[in-house]
Amino acid sequence: MKVGILGLGTVGGGVINVLQKNSASIERRTGVQIELVIAGVRDVTKKRICDTSNIKLTEDPFEVVNHPDIDVVLELIGGFGLAKELVEAAINNGKHIITANKALIGNHGNELMKLANKKQVRFLFEASVAGGIPIIKALGQGLSANNIESVAGIINGTGNFILTDMKEKGRDFDDVLKEAQALGYAEEDPTFDIEGIDAAHKLSILAAIAFGTEIQFSKVYTQGISKITTEDILHATELGYTIKHLGIAKRVEDGIELRVHPTLVSNSQLIAQVDGVMNAVLVKSDALGTSLYYGAGAGDEATASAVIADLNDIINNQTSNHILGWKSQEKINVVDNDAIVSEFFLRLLVSDIKGVLSKVTGIFNDHNVSIEALIQKQVDENKNAHIAITTDRVSTKTVMNIKKAIEASDFNQAEVQLIHIELLD
Amino acid sequence: MKVGILGLGTVGGGVINVLQKNSASIERRTGVQIELVIAGVRDVTKKRICDTSNIKLTEDPFEVVNHPDIDVVLELIGGFGLAKELVEAAINNGKHIITANKALIGNHGNELMKLANKKQVRFLFEASVAGGIPIIKALGQGLSANNIESVAGIINGTGNFILTDMKEKGRDFDDVLKEAQALGYAEEDPTFDIEGIDAAHKLSILAAIAFGTEIQFSKVYTQGISKITTEDILHATELGYTIKHLGIAKRVEDGIELRVHPTLVSNSQLIAQVDGVMNAVLVKSDALGTSLYYGAGAGDEATASAVIADLNDIINNQTSNHILGWKSQEKINVVDNDAIVSEFFLRLLVSDIKGVLSKVTGIFNDHNVSIEALIQKQVDENKNAHIAITTDRVSTKTVMNIKKAIEASDFNQAEVQLIHIELLD
Repeated sequence: MKVGILGLGTVGGGVINVLQKNSASIERRTGVQIELVIAGVRDVTKKRICDTSNIKLTEDPFEVVNHPDIDVVLELIGGFGLAKELVEAAINNGKHIITANKALIGNHGNELMKLANKKQVRFLFEASVAGGIPIIKALGQGLSANNIESVAGIINGTGNFILTDMKEKGRDFDDVLKEAQALGYAEEDPTFDIEGIDAAHKLSILAAIAFGTEIQFSKVYTQGISKITTEDILHATELGYTIKHLGIAKRVEDGIELRVHPTLVSNSQLIAQVDGVMNAVLVKSDALGTSLYYGAGAGDEATASAVIADLNDIINNQTSNHILGWKSQEKINVVDNDAIVSEFFLRLLVSDIKGVLSKVTGIFNDHNVSIEALIQKQVDENKNAHIAITTDRVSTKTVMNIKKAIEASDFNQAEVQLIHIELLD
Repeated sequence: MKVGILGLGTVGGGVINVLQKNSASIERRTGVQIELVIAGVRDVTKKRICDTSNIKLTEDPFEVVNHPDIDVVLELIGGFGLAKELVEAAINNGKHIITANKALIGNHGNELMKLANKKQVRFLFEASVAGGIPIIKALGQGLSANNIESVAGIINGTGNFILTDMKEKGRDFDDVLKEAQALGYAEEDPTFDIEGIDAAHKLSILAAIAFGTEIQFSKVYTQGISKITTEDILHATELGYTIKHLGIAKRVEDGIELRVHPTLVSNSQLIAQVDGVMNAVLVKSDALGTSLYYGAGAGDEATASAVIADLNDIINNQTSNHILGWKSQEKINVVDNDAIVSEFFLRLLVSDIKGVLSKVTGIFNDHNVSIEALIQKQVDENKNAHIAITTDRVSTKTVMNIKKAIEASDFNQAEVQLIHIELLD
């Protein structure tokens, strides 16, 4: 099995290191020696985390995808401009593709998979979601007897690190973000991670496997964590919840919900205990019930673990595109965000005038929404009171109207914070 | 794909129900319709949980394994007398085998797999460990790039239900066992579950996949939970631990450790939060690091989920015997229990005489063992004191000598309780 690699950064370097280190045990499981033939890199003189003495390095990536000896191309350069061009060329040359590139799949997965099916090559991407956790294989094979009802995951380690640290140390978002950047967990421009775009890419992939829908990245309702405050976390904790940035895909009557947003999760749920940069995906399915898959969502060797697992599957003739559900995909309707029904957490800052609680609860009553729990916290130096409210199940449209009505009231002192609650059981 | 079933009890009935209910989504993933041709049952007139109107029922199980149209036999009758005979006959007839029978594999897995390899049929058993959790596929495929360092699992739901209930409600073992029996979670004769034999079967299977060793069920050190008391649980809780009945397989310098025993797990570990009848398997591996797989370990449809996943893998030509590591198995040395090094929890009942603490700690000192934590609890009506101690890492042999030395002392009032602590990180 002869392999070409595009990109020898963190993931590519990890792949080489793991293949070298574990060649004996990998051969035990495959009966085949994996030969790394050629790698396309930006600068052949750069110092690397891996030993490349037996691999030809080239600065022309097309030399890799056009190499006549190569059976499989590992696309590990990221982005979706050049990466797409290279992957298309490789497929057209009859090479199998393994990629860790969620942005590429999120944006061009449908057409690339169509091309791969046409050219009868494998297009595998275990590493694109939740790093080394074999969640794509679990959904495609392990749970293949099930109708999947929902998938809810902590699928961005950066965001989870920030929320965990904010909770554990009572620190501000900006403060923790800076630390995450210093530690290398967050990029200099952290938008993709903290605003949920990365998670939305991954969610669109999970939904495709779980429900047999096309990739519908552009339809994912996406809300980041940058507006989560220590106040939110304190109130959530008091009510028995932890705030997690979840990607949620759910089958409902009118199609599927696809959403990435901060979410209050009950502390009694296992996923509420998933801390730091770790990832976890909770799956609800009709035969198995609830199952959860937990592990490292990033890192050189963790991601390499998933890339090489795909490689081993190709060697063993496993994980066809078919079982990924990608030979019979339909475009399942994505439910509009306004129509999504959920429980919600609202946090208000109101002037501590007489009867304010009754006015607030009156607004919920006017919209026919039941309040599940209410905490009125300390009055601050400005004579303002903090109120946290959790609701019964209500449509997003209605709860947005409640938010607007509160914000239009004379007692209101700040933008109302509105966060989904997800029961997950 | 034509299928014959041996046994239409809970699991067999679940398989039929799930195949009928989810035929559309299964066909989407396989492109094939699965046809249940014939089922061997003890009594064809018995009322069942599933619709058998399109399946031929027979009371002669050999009619199933000899049926000329059948491609795959699902062995779901359990036990390892008749089951073995039937599976051998089916393999010799060129049928693929899917089984949920951990006792069969624990006792005869090596020879059956050899026969299956010789006859070039698939021998799959995802349902034999941790019910519907796709842990065999995760170890064999998802983690195939990794050297596995250890596997530690809650792999018996009955035991976990009992320990959870004892902790949550402060109830006695016998009391909870009776409830588990009434609820159908425990058998009338609960020995297999509570004494760890069932878990040892499963552990021997996990170890075979993880390390490429032969099945070595008879070498598993097995200790049950029937001697765990509410006192143990209270002291463990106070020290920040939960007691779980774990199956642990670990690579060490001299080979592998294979052991099933009650274990103190830190409450900060996810696996400590796995409650009730749920199962979970924690895997440590060199590339991915720590990963965890959680879900239902039993139940008709949960187990059926795993059986049908194996069936779909056969249809899609996936999960060869090879990737299970069973084509290159060696007999890896199982380390003797005496030589296993671990931290331990000891619980003592001693007479509250002057200097007793110094005498107890002196015994540890004499054996060169450090005490990590010590709690002396209330003196009871008999003027006896309860002492709980956790040790630093020490060999089982040494800690057994400490236990003996304490029990031989004049201040000792009861058998010393000795439980493993497992750090798992």
